[in-house]
Amino acid sequence: MKAIYLDSVQKLSERAIPAPIPGDNQVLVRIKAVGICGSDVHYWRNGRIGSFVVEHPMVLGHECSGIVAEAGRGVKNLKEGDRVVIEPGVPCYKCEHCMSGRYNLCRDIAFFATPPYDGCLLEYVAFDSNLVYKVPDEIGDFGLATLAEPMAVGVFSTSRLRPRLGDKAVIFGAGVIGIACMYAARASGCGEISVADIREERLDKVKKMGADRVFNLKTERLPDDHYDIGYDATGADRCYSLAVRAIKPGGRFSLVGMGPDVQSAPLVEYVCREIDIVTSFRYANSFPQAIRLLKENRDELGKFITHRLPFSLENVEKALQTAFSDQSAGKVVVDFD
Amino acid sequence: MKAIYLDSVQKLSERAIPAPIPGDNQVLVRIKAVGICGSDVHYWRNGRIGSFVVEHPMVLGHECSGIVAEAGRGVKNLKEGDRVVIEPGVPCYKCEHCMSGRYNLCRDIAFFATPPYDGCLLEYVAFDSNLVYKVPDEIGDFGLATLAEPMAVGVFSTSRLRPRLGDKAVIFGAGVIGIACMYAARASGCGEISVADIREERLDKVKKMGADRVFNLKTERLPDDHYDIGYDATGADRCYSLAVRAIKPGGRFSLVGMGPDVQSAPLVEYVCREIDIVTSFRYANSFPQAIRLLKENRDELGKFITHRLPFSLENVEKALQTAFSDQSAGKVVVDFD
Amino acid sequence: MKAIYLDSVQKLSERAIPAPIPGDNQVLVRIKAVGICGSDVHYWRNGRIGSFVVEHPMVLGHECSGIVAEAGRGVKNLKEGDRVVIEPGVPCYKCEHCMSGRYNLCRDIAFFATPPYDGCLLEYVAFDSNLVYKVPDEIGDFGLATLAEPMAVGVFSTSRLRPRLGDKAVIFGAGVIGIACMYAARASGCGEISVADIREERLDKVKKMGADRVFNLKTERLPDDHYDIGYDATGADRCYSLAVRAIKPGGRFSLVGMGPDVQSAPLVEYVCREIDIVTSFRYANSFPQAIRLLKENRDELGKFITHRLPFSLENVEKALQTAFSDQSAGKVVVDFD
Amino acid sequence: MKAIYLDSVQKLSERAIPAPIPGDNQVLVRIKAVGICGSDVHYWRNGRIGSFVVEHPMVLGHECSGIVAEAGRGVKNLKEGDRVVIEPGVPCYKCEHCMSGRYNLCRDIAFFATPPYDGCLLEYVAFDSNLVYKVPDEIGDFGLATLAEPMAVGVFSTSRLRPRLGDKAVIFGAGVIGIACMYAARASGCGEISVADIREERLDKVKKMGADRVFNLKTERLPDDHYDIGYDATGADRCYSLAVRAIKPGGRFSLVGMGPDVQSAPLVEYVCREIDIVTSFRYANSFPQAIRLLKENRDELGKFITHRLPFSLENVEKALQTAFSDQSAGKVVVDFD
Repeated sequence: MKAIYLDSVQKLSERAIPAPIPGDNQVLVRIKAVGICGSDVHYWRNGRIGSFVVEHPMVLGHECSGIVAEAGRGVKNLKEGDRVVIEPGVPCYKCEHCMSGRYNLCRDIAFFATPPYDGCLLEYVAFDSNLVYKVPDEIGDFGLATLAEPMAVGVFSTSRLRPRLGDKAVIFGAGVIGIACMYAARASGCGEISVADIREERLDKVKKMGADRVFNLKTERLPDDHYDIGYDATGADRCYSLAVRAIKPGGRFSLVGMGPDVQSAPLVEYVCREIDIVTSFRYANSFPQAIRLLKENRDELGKFITHRLPFSLENVEKALQTAFSDQSAGKVVVDFD
Repeated sequence: MKAIYLDSVQKLSERAIPAPIPGDNQVLVRIKAVGICGSDVHYWRNGRIGSFVVEHPMVLGHECSGIVAEAGRGVKNLKEGDRVVIEPGVPCYKCEHCMSGRYNLCRDIAFFATPPYDGCLLEYVAFDSNLVYKVPDEIGDFGLATLAEPMAVGVFSTSRLRPRLGDKAVIFGAGVIGIACMYAARASGCGEISVADIREERLDKVKKMGADRVFNLKTERLPDDHYDIGYDATGADRCYSLAVRAIKPGGRFSLVGMGPDVQSAPLVEYVCREIDIVTSFRYANSFPQAIRLLKENRDELGKFITHRLPFSLENVEKALQTAFSDQSAGKVVVDFD
Repeated sequence: MKAIYLDSVQKLSERAIPAPIPGDNQVLVRIKAVGICGSDVHYWRNGRIGSFVVEHPMVLGHECSGIVAEAGRGVKNLKEGDRVVIEPGVPCYKCEHCMSGRYNLCRDIAFFATPPYDGCLLEYVAFDSNLVYKVPDEIGDFGLATLAEPMAVGVFSTSRLRPRLGDKAVIFGAGVIGIACMYAARASGCGEISVADIREERLDKVKKMGADRVFNLKTERLPDDHYDIGYDATGADRCYSLAVRAIKPGGRFSLVGMGPDVQSAPLVEYVCREIDIVTSFRYANSFPQAIRLLKENRDELGKFITHRLPFSLENVEKALQTAFSDQSAGKVVVDFD
Repeated sequence: MKAIYLDSVQKLSERAIPAPIPGDNQVLVRIKAVGICGSDVHYWRNGRIGSFVVEHPMVLGHECSGIVAEAGRGVKNLKEGDRVVIEPGVPCYKCEHCMSGRYNLCRDIAFFATPPYDGCLLEYVAFDSNLVYKVPDEIGDFGLATLAEPMAVGVFSTSRLRPRLGDKAVIFGAGVIGIACMYAARASGCGEISVADIREERLDKVKKMGADRVFNLKTERLPDDHYDIGYDATGADRCYSLAVRAIKPGGRFSLVGMGPDVQSAPLVEYVCREIDIVTSFRYANSFPQAIRLLKENRDELGKFITHRLPFSLENVEKALQTAFSDQSAGKVVVDFD
């Protein structure tokens, strides 16, 4: 089968490798679409993210959908021909974190396209069937289905925040993660939801998708003491200062976005207003709800996909380049066959 | 009665004012001891803390104990002669925060020695009886009893952290608040407790008080990935960086200490390790447990009081000066008659 | 002003009494509509509910709406002419329960039409303004507005259950409380919601109101191990047995309905399946969300009101009789002027 | 190796079977002691517990300690010669319950001596190493070490109850589970702890073990509205009625004990007092703390073991008989070599 490797910084190659064979309780998935994520771009451009360094050739991609080509022994939840998405990390199942339901924190998790583990920009993958989920018919397009992964980020951050019915929410960042948070917050009972960003066209889009209010932080000011909860999907320092005043005392602020290594934040204000900072890393137990939200909001979410290219070495490079440099690009998807 | 006012920066005066009369459900407390807190010193030195500015003469002091001199109509929990401590903030009781059990966040709370509200460096105070607590006989000394207030800070931060049985805890800061956190963490089920500071003599003391391990951060390094929870009782930036590595993924970090307005912190590491930051401001529903912990650890806690001065204009000034400039000072207490 | 008293069992009288005068932070509300609740009927028929005995003449009614006739000193949230509903219990604000946000458990709460406190079947009531809520224009009818009270029961039980996004819920009882739970569960993120009852016409109605599935327990069987959470809004023993099998291990079961003094339940199955029983009594901090849900579902909820009678001694009696004996009756409302 | 089988009701036999071979990430444990539990007795006497029926010969026993005889490939936490206890259920690791940290609810858990899975009354067992825990030197006796299992029941029920610092607790039942709850409650921050039973000699013992108050329910009455939390370790109906009055409104009641299939309980009082019923089934993530509590209270807990017999067919029968019929028996332990 064909696989695209990142050999070194900005150097991709195509290789023919043997297709995997599914073990017990695994399924073989024929990949049909892969979404390009910021982390793929980052590895391609820099060869590393923080302490994760690409030291050996690695296949990129972790947002994928496909078709079950073969079900291994013992698999009950899936059968050949099922249309699926993959939750792209296999934990050890047995450590302290796994046993307590926080398998996203497993130190030995094998996560797609995180060194030294290969990703899914290849034709077939064998995967633990309990981490592979059927896609409902309403999500007809495999490209659309890849959005289950970013939606899971929003679902998980919301499950850690645990909004209460009627909570007012402010979301910093109108990209795909911010939108995922918006849909998850709405579905979880939030009342008024505001989204703040600095790009007008994004705010226009998110307003149409259902935000009650949008704020262009270049020119507009958030109300004081107004929100019960907040999400940061930007990683930008400035949002920490804006959030602590916009959120009411006793509120909670979710960090989903990742910024630079060290940031400045008015932590003393967080203390004086007793606003907790709730973190979330990737996701756990979130794909079923992510798929449900994707189904319910498929028309709007589909508009996020702005570029689609057939799977080839050249196109993967083009996809990465587009995601990197095209300011107007939404999600870039690589289609198989 | 006699009261000591802060008229303006570093300018105190003594005044004779009428003693208050307890209203319904209030008690009149004759003050017997007042502990000097860092915030008293701060107001005295600078005339302000953050947005709280002393614009009119104000009585300092909020850590106090005394004797019930008179019980107003309707008071059931107390009677004349009871030895008591006061929880020094009266909330509005009716706002969103009060009605949901977070009265410490009440915007209209009248808190001792927080402008424009007077504190307790005076002879009598009338106070809502539900916020006045009997002191058990074992806490024989009124000076010792004033420590109920800082203990309540530790109890409350711990009640917000909610440690699980056996959690390993690291506490940054070996001052009175750090110690209060240590006792509260221990009583709440924590197993191994480490305390980190940069002053050797403090670490020696805290080791004797029951810390399992102490770390002098000038020379020693905390273990990686070791603690389930942490407390910051310093407000120093550096502790945010040290904590995120010492605490295991999935842990929780309590901010009790207050530092400068803006701080730097590796928030992205908090996200990647999914370590939540749990804030606590003053206290709510914590005095009964604070008094219990004070009783149980009275011998050790008594050693924190290093200076005692009789109530007078001159001595209040001396007390503030000592708390400000004497590095070896623990708690400075002003005694009444 | 005119008031209708329950003098003794099944004996009502009309009296002229002075209108109250609002104190500080109180509003005077001119009552416009009162819904008849099962507890009103119960007091009227039996003179008692459990340990609450009507020993002196008492005004019935606790579900009411009205217009602010006068705002007392200090009132900020309301003004003359505002259309409002009343949360019908005034707690002491200062006891352990009140101070920890559970004021519904206050031992000294003065709750409408719970001996010895009068209810709202009278023309004017003076009430703490923090427990009086503005009704939005969309809820144009005062009779409809009285449904905020039962909706608050559903909101509160749901806030204690804390469903997670996508939870499947089963509700026993298709009366007004069951419906309130359904709307609150839906708004809080529940996915599939089933409602079970033994009256076909109620199930038909609730199906139209949005239940995903309905089960007539006379003839139909709930699926095993299917639901994440459940609500009992019946108080019938049988539901405890059905619930423990329909709910998945690890689920939660909310008790909202009240049945006889002693009941039989397979508690050992609850233990073996680790299904917690979550109780809720009346409500706390729930009216704002109840009003929101009422507004959003006003058309369907309006159909619950089947009888409306103008305020008079004769009609109050008729209203109680109808609520007691007319099987097809939904909510019976008494309208003022 | 030698194993003792329950062939049918009250019929035991000894068999020689091949010793198991540890797989990857498994250890081979040489059993050194097995405690007899009520469920062993129940299977022996009745051939079933609820829906679990012994249809084929089955080895009894699930409370055991031993020595690591061999560590399989990949085992890191243990080595040959380690003294250990076994958490006696191996879950599937991958179902909804396992992935969310509630592996005790796994439908496919292979639990010792629960049909069709064999227990540990045999010489060697191969077991997943992540469920095998080192025993500290302070717990020198293997018989004592078997008490880690019942201690884990108390730790787990407490972790589900989550007491707050200073909570007053009442425990119904002064047997080994009640004691385990007492120690776990104390370690978790509970203040005053009362234990209630109907056997005076048990209450005497538990008083010496640290209960603050004991109540003989034959003659004594618990205080009303006094406790914040409660535990039932009896399964007796009467305790449900006593508990709801002894616990304060807003409290929580843990069910650990298992009684008959259907029980009577005043559930309406639980609702009116908003006392939640918190269930716990076996344990999850509790052995490390159970071992810690066992170590800390080893002297008192050791006194629970009243009978010890060497491993043989005859003695296993005698052990079951003693546990069944000797009212004065505490824990009966079978010792290996």
